[in-house]
Amino acid sequence: MKVAFLGLGVMGFPMAGHLAAKGHEVVVYNRTPAKAARWTAAHKGVAAGDPAEAAKGAEIVFACLGDDPDVEAVLDAAAPAIGDGTIVVDHTTASPALARRLAGRFREAGAGFLDAPVSGGQAGAENGKLSVMCGGEAADFERARPAMEAYAARIVHVGPSGHGQLCKAVNQICIAGLVQALSEGVHFAKEAGLDLDRVYEAISGGAAQSWQMSNRMQTMAQGDFDFGFAVNWMRKDLRIALEEARSSGARLPVTALVDQFYADIQAMGGGRLDTSSLIKRL
Amino acid sequence: MKVAFLGLGVMGFPMAGHLAAKGHEVVVYNRTPAKAARWTAAHKGVAAGDPAEAAKGAEIVFACLGDDPDVEAVLDAAAPAIGDGTIVVDHTTASPALARRLAGRFREAGAGFLDAPVSGGQAGAENGKLSVMCGGEAADFERARPAMEAYAARIVHVGPSGHGQLCKAVNQICIAGLVQALSEGVHFAKEAGLDLDRVYEAISGGAAQSWQMSNRMQTMAQGDFDFGFAVNWMRKDLRIALEEARSSGARLPVTALVDQFYADIQAMGGGRLDTSSLIKRL
Repeated sequence: MKVAFLGLGVMGFPMAGHLAAKGHEVVVYNRTPAKAARWTAAHKGVAAGDPAEAAKGAEIVFACLGDDPDVEAVLDAAAPAIGDGTIVVDHTTASPALARRLAGRFREAGAGFLDAPVSGGQAGAENGKLSVMCGGEAADFERARPAMEAYAARIVHVGPSGHGQLCKAVNQICIAGLVQALSEGVHFAKEAGLDLDRVYEAISGGAAQSWQMSNRMQTMAQGDFDFGFAVNWMRKDLRIALEEARSSGARLPVTALVDQFYADIQAMGGGRLDTSSLIKRL
Repeated sequence: MKVAFLGLGVMGFPMAGHLAAKGHEVVVYNRTPAKAARWTAAHKGVAAGDPAEAAKGAEIVFACLGDDPDVEAVLDAAAPAIGDGTIVVDHTTASPALARRLAGRFREAGAGFLDAPVSGGQAGAENGKLSVMCGGEAADFERARPAMEAYAARIVHVGPSGHGQLCKAVNQICIAGLVQALSEGVHFAKEAGLDLDRVYEAISGGAAQSWQMSNRMQTMAQGDFDFGFAVNWMRKDLRIALEEARSSGARLPVTALVDQFYADIQAMGGGRLDTSSLIKRL
């Protein structure tokens, strides 16, 4: 299948690579051309000079960018080449409002649009085990799903346009308070002089169990934060969740508080650290 | 082995039953005698009229009571019968300070003491799959461990006296913020009109995963809270954690906030509801 991939960041670069490895004809585009050159040097596929050139003739146009304005700018530029029967799959974590707007716009052009943010981080992108949560038309989802299997272990059609982004917001809301709770637990344990390995052994099989506990308790205790999902990106995602909550009327007191704690971490110079760096405030 | 079991509440009743089923000679005591009569009607074992009578000649004296004052009162009453070579195992979730005090007191009498709070709830007590986190001397731990295997799947010696209670406090700190985060996620999803089953399918394999998500997301969404671990007990446990933090200097901002949210639930008449009832405030 002929596909375009717009955006070769830490996520997009390996995702586009998995598509090429599965035998798809991939045309990539990246705003910094050097990254596109690095990608074509490592993979079968070609680089285009602008988004429209990449999208021309593609059955599916994938995007994986930074934030709403990036998505708008790049897809605006690609739009002249996106017409009847094309599906645009946006893997960026962006706002549900933008997803609805883009879906309407591409529908008018006879194209489909899926908001399809992912979870699983850089490791998931590299080993092809991402989770993808999709909003949009069921027919578009079914057409795009086989291609996404190149890099995803779990691909769920959550609901209509915007529901992929809303689902990702739920994911980040659940993580924010959970990571703060784990930080407080580890901090309390250290202040009390407990042996963290024994604490983990005692409590990791019960009601306090979480992926974060299994994967971040030890690194938190060691003060190791130079990896994982950056605070700067988490703040962007929480901004989207809190803006959406403001319009839906949902109440997120701890999420809003933890967002401010992440602002503290940024002010301490920790914007690029993993989200588990919340413990540094304590 | 001859053992005593003091306190036949929702936890102690089945725990004492598992000891009897394993062939131990169990003498039970309960402040409300009707419960002890109900226990002896259902199990091989006898009931004593007071704690000292129950403890007389026992190799291990187990207790599973409500709060610090209950533990003090019942173990004070049992103390005359507790001497050389006896081990007292307190399964109550109580304060680390009380654990250290009782350990000193029984050591003077030639006896051992383990603070050994459990997790796993009523279901864990009934199916014999509790986790036990023990503070105290290693030799006492090794002597008491085989008996505890009657009702526990995981038994960990965390450290010296008080460390069992401190470990349990870590467990409850991790749960408090986690349950609030999950409540906010479910509440946000409902306000946004998302299909919760699809959201669960999309996010339950990733970084937001938790025991609480797997076991409480659906019941929260359905408004089902008449089961599980009661808010009143959680507030007692958080009081212990927050008091300890006040003395150690640990900072628990979200734990303290969620404790106040649980106070709201109590004020709404929900003290006996499961801890997942936090979502009722939203």
